Amino acid sequence: MELKQPKPGPLLANINSPADLKKLKPTQLQDVCDELRQYIVDIVSVHGGHFGASLGVVELTTALHYVYDTPDDLLVWDVGHQAYGHKILTGRRDQFHTNRVYGGLSGFPKRSESEYDTFGVGHSSTSISAALGMAVARDLDKSGKKVVAVIGDGAMTAGLAFEAMNNAGAMNSDILVILNDNNMSIDPNVGALKEYLADITTSKTFNKMRDEVYDMLGHFKSAGDKMRKVASRLENAMMAALTPGSLFRALGFKYYGPTDGHDVDGLRDMLEDLKEVKGPKLLHIVTVKGKGFAPAEREQTKWHASSSPFDKITGKTLVTPSPAKKKSAPKYQDVFGEALVELAKEDERIVSMTPAMPSGSSLLPMMEAFPDRAFDVGIAEQHAVTFAAGLAAEGKKPFCAIYSSFLQRGYDQLVHDVAIQNLPVVFCIDRAGLVGADGPTHHGAYDISFMRAVPNLIISSPLNEQDLRDMMYTASKFDDASWAIRYPRGEATGMKVKEGFSSMEVGKGIQLREGEDIAILSFGPIGKYVTEAAEILSNEGVEIGHFDMRFAKPLDTNLIDEVCQNYRHIVTLEDGTKLGGFGSAVAEYIAEKPDRPTLKIMGIPDRIIEHGTQEQLHDEIGIGVAGIVEIVKQKNLIKV
Amino acid sequence: MELKQPKPGPLLANINSPADLKKLKPTQLQDVCDELRQYIVDIVSVHGGHFGASLGVVELTTALHYVYDTPDDLLVWDVGHQAYGHKILTGRRDQFHTNRVYGGLSGFPKRSESEYDTFGVGHSSTSISAALGMAVARDLDKSGKKVVAVIGDGAMTAGLAFEAMNNAGAMNSDILVILNDNNMSIDPNVGALKEYLADITTSKTFNKMRDEVYDMLGHFKSAGDKMRKVASRLENAMMAALTPGSLFRALGFKYYGPTDGHDVDGLRDMLEDLKEVKGPKLLHIVTVKGKGFAPAEREQTKWHASSSPFDKITGKTLVTPSPAKKKSAPKYQDVFGEALVELAKEDERIVSMTPAMPSGSSLLPMMEAFPDRAFDVGIAEQHAVTFAAGLAAEGKKPFCAIYSSFLQRGYDQLVHDVAIQNLPVVFCIDRAGLVGADGPTHHGAYDISFMRAVPNLIISSPLNEQDLRDMMYTASKFDDASWAIRYPRGEATGMKVKEGFSSMEVGKGIQLREGEDIAILSFGPIGKYVTEAAEILSNEGVEIGHFDMRFAKPLDTNLIDEVCQNYRHIVTLEDGTKLGGFGSAVAEYIAEKPDRPTLKIMGIPDRIIEHGTQEQLHDEIGIGVAGIVEIVKQKNLIKV
Repeated sequence: MELKQPKPGPLLANINSPADLKKLKPTQLQDVCDELRQYIVDIVSVHGGHFGASLGVVELTTALHYVYDTPDDLLVWDVGHQAYGHKILTGRRDQFHTNRVYGGLSGFPKRSESEYDTFGVGHSSTSISAALGMAVARDLDKSGKKVVAVIGDGAMTAGLAFEAMNNAGAMNSDILVILNDNNMSIDPNVGALKEYLADITTSKTFNKMRDEVYDMLGHFKSAGDKMRKVASRLENAMMAALTPGSLFRALGFKYYGPTDGHDVDGLRDMLEDLKEVKGPKLLHIVTVKGKGFAPAEREQTKWHASSSPFDKITGKTLVTPSPAKKKSAPKYQDVFGEALVELAKEDERIVSMTPAMPSGSSLLPMMEAFPDRAFDVGIAEQHAVTFAAGLAAEGKKPFCAIYSSFLQRGYDQLVHDVAIQNLPVVFCIDRAGLVGADGPTHHGAYDISFMRAVPNLIISSPLNEQDLRDMMYTASKFDDASWAIRYPRGEATGMKVKEGFSSMEVGKGIQLREGEDIAILSFGPIGKYVTEAAEILSNEGVEIGHFDMRFAKPLDTNLIDEVCQNYRHIVTLEDGTKLGGFGSAVAEYIAEKPDRPTLKIMGIPDRIIEHGTQEQLHDEIGIGVAGIVEIVKQKNLIKV
Repeated sequence: MELKQPKPGPLLANINSPADLKKLKPTQLQDVCDELRQYIVDIVSVHGGHFGASLGVVELTTALHYVYDTPDDLLVWDVGHQAYGHKILTGRRDQFHTNRVYGGLSGFPKRSESEYDTFGVGHSSTSISAALGMAVARDLDKSGKKVVAVIGDGAMTAGLAFEAMNNAGAMNSDILVILNDNNMSIDPNVGALKEYLADITTSKTFNKMRDEVYDMLGHFKSAGDKMRKVASRLENAMMAALTPGSLFRALGFKYYGPTDGHDVDGLRDMLEDLKEVKGPKLLHIVTVKGKGFAPAEREQTKWHASSSPFDKITGKTLVTPSPAKKKSAPKYQDVFGEALVELAKEDERIVSMTPAMPSGSSLLPMMEAFPDRAFDVGIAEQHAVTFAAGLAAEGKKPFCAIYSSFLQRGYDQLVHDVAIQNLPVVFCIDRAGLVGADGPTHHGAYDISFMRAVPNLIISSPLNEQDLRDMMYTASKFDDASWAIRYPRGEATGMKVKEGFSSMEVGKGIQLREGEDIAILSFGPIGKYVTEAAEILSNEGVEIGHFDMRFAKPLDTNLIDEVCQNYRHIVTLEDGTKLGGFGSAVAEYIAEKPDRPTLKIMGIPDRIIEHGTQEQLHDEIGIGVAGIVEIVKQKNLIKV
């Protein structure tokens, strides 16, 4: 697909930096917003991308860059899904059609991309901590910079945001937190905080009450002296108590709002006023995710992001499925989701949880089938894991569905609450390996390594959807340790899957292909590349052995012993970092043998991998089919 | 030192389980409390241990076991420092003098130790998540169990606790959270929440105001009909607003308190009442850390724990320093603390932060010397790391002091906020390796492995205090990547340290001893064992090579190439897990060489290591001096 830049509106066409925006009159800002919104729709409708969040903050983005002196003043966008408008207004309009494309702009703010991107994001809830650090630096340097963090109500539920608020409130640091309340994460937001915010924003009673108190106190003031004094003190206390935002005030923040986040003039006034208010303060704005694009306003989860072109008015998808690929393979996520329901029907101990990814992780079927046994705990990875441990401690069998890169946030809980106690939690680790367009923050590159260090934890990965089902089944029956099953984002093989489930032998790999000289030991679905490479090599007269190891821990040492006897070279392949992962486990095991094959570890190299399709990235780092063929040919020249 | 059991008081002597406690009359509970407190003092004054927290909850512990039907009802103690009384009342009185001793009771609740220990702890802030999991299991099983979490005000500041409250409040699950408010973590508590709680517990204005509102509303009720209606609605709203605890109510919890946590009768009554209240509820009790032992009440940080015998009345330490060891070596922590101040004097970019461990990590000197540049952020490891990243993004040079096992909780922040952005944060990783008496939850066993997987991160460890200083200096000048320096709990070597600092070459190891056949590559202070082992072996005619590698990443591959040429066997030694750590890095590097020495990786084996002294544990797992000697002798028999 050719990447085309749409035509911006007349005002937007002349905005090449916030300085250009600032030349406009306040009365022109609404027009800028309209053009900006249209430009985002024009691009995303053709190229795909995150969507709803950016449409929701068009007015906020415009007002922020109008009022503040960016990049000297520091804007920190939480998560960054919502920063498309920010990118377009800060000199990246003409590159924006390359958003999320290999070699193009990142889908998130990124320090190396622009001086306006003050802090790289991708995972949620980091903005207040980062902003506080910047504010402290500002105070030390006496630079006078303003620091603003923009965070959604979903991201506010994560513990990191709370820790930062608690610290910022006590330090009395001069920062502005803008709470962008759209009542959504990717899925509808959950948790007590959501209900609290809904109370604030919807309660007419609240405002009426406040008026009545004023009335009443007026009566008192006409009374005697003592009464007047009491009334005055009461007025202060009650106004504070009856103004919304007590939660944030309890954490040391001045609270302003709630206010309409789509009124650009109102936002501009308010931001100007807030520049004069010192100390930690929170502005609560209410926005609509997908604002201005009717289909996205109606179906917010679906329109969180779009991966295919759509009609700009109706939202209808424009891709006609190619007949050749009519029946596409199911996603690993969906295989997981369906298998879980089947298992849960048979075993009432099974429960499941996700940190705010019910649709992403395909937990929705389980939530529908067993609403009492499946839980969206909100953006709260730490809690998700310890909550699972609590359930396991009382005899349940929790399947904790979590993205690989998000499990990084539950690592201590994995060690401390699950592994040390040896509780039989099953981790279904989604988005393992390179994820594609989301890029560095979302690549599941490190999980094999950080998990392998931890005792009492089985680490497995299926070659295909059949194996995923059977691994889940086997894990559901296994209570001697916790168990991680990792699988990538995207489609499985499309193979025909058997009804029911079969048990697998724990810690045993299988041989897929016999060969000579060179054995490739693969871990996980990436083994498909080996199958392809082996065919190519076979056509050229080179026969390699292929072993699908299934388990990175415990390692199938008997099988490796056999391989060591029969092959001169071993190559390992994994969709994970080469440092400390599956290949490293093989290296550790054979290190002590006096006589052994050479070992080449293929995996993700020790650098940050940018965004692109999974195939592009695998090829870039040389672990695609071509890379495997090349390595085998090199090895084949070496006689040991 | 012989371990002696003190004599319990007459009531306590007959309490072998909570069932015995329940046989007593309510009027006898205060006497039980007095005996329990005395028993704890008697034991800790002789054997050492955590102390202040347990004295503070004697009344709560007694009331809980009196009112609830443990172990059927589930008590979850947060952190667990405060669970000594719980252990003594639940059948472990006569073993309690073995607390924290090798082979004895754990210093924390532990599932494998007692059915009364429902959830193993050590790190803070897990209790509400775990309790919620247990409550959900209870609801599924319809078992009717009561679930109670006891959490301190310090632990309440961690994000995990907030995530759990947010989820529990929304799920409307029937749990009781008891907030034990003593205004302390190990160090004095910090953060906005602390100030909020102090407001609640100290504000007389608050209560007076409430009385005045009642008065005022009385006047109104005697007025006209409309006024009466308004007054009635106002009464409800105002009472809610003017009752403390709005923060917790905002999260969906019913709030009760604050109440005196040393009034055992009052607590008993209140707990009985709360059994009848459904849904999520929080009882706020106010206690004094160290209650009943005057020296501990006065100096709460010092008396958080005691490691040496003391006089039971005055608190004076009873150990006379032995003349032979008069001048003990400084702790690594103190070497860090002093060096940091020296470096900060020369480089004003340097800032520092600790998550609630200013005394433990020896950040106090920096906080005194540069109060604007050193920060205790509270129990908030995630925030500590991202806060550091924010400072680095604005040109500062943050030294983030953090325990190894607590960095597990900041792992995503290390990856996502520091490494992906390649910000030059220096991590000073304290308590790396086996920590001793605190046991499994506190062992710093995994950091080399979980850090090695992450790009843009240097990993180093000093052999001694001189090297620690020079590594800190070198890291302070190095802005090309982030940098971790790991060192263990406890004393350094006692060597004479040079004035000032010297630069080290990044990624270079040094040879300490020449030998033949066998080379030992050590990483960190544990290299001292190799030095000792080499002497012993030399006396027996075996000469080994010894290399202090200093860096686990980048690895000194030139030096390893040399070693491979000159030695037949390599042994690596580290105070960290054998899986994915420093030895694993060496295994990965040499794996591809066709002709190479055998490699034996010595480190922490792949199982949970219990508590004991560091030396006991190193010997147990075979990485002490004797273990090294033995391995060398075995290898020496193998001719390659």
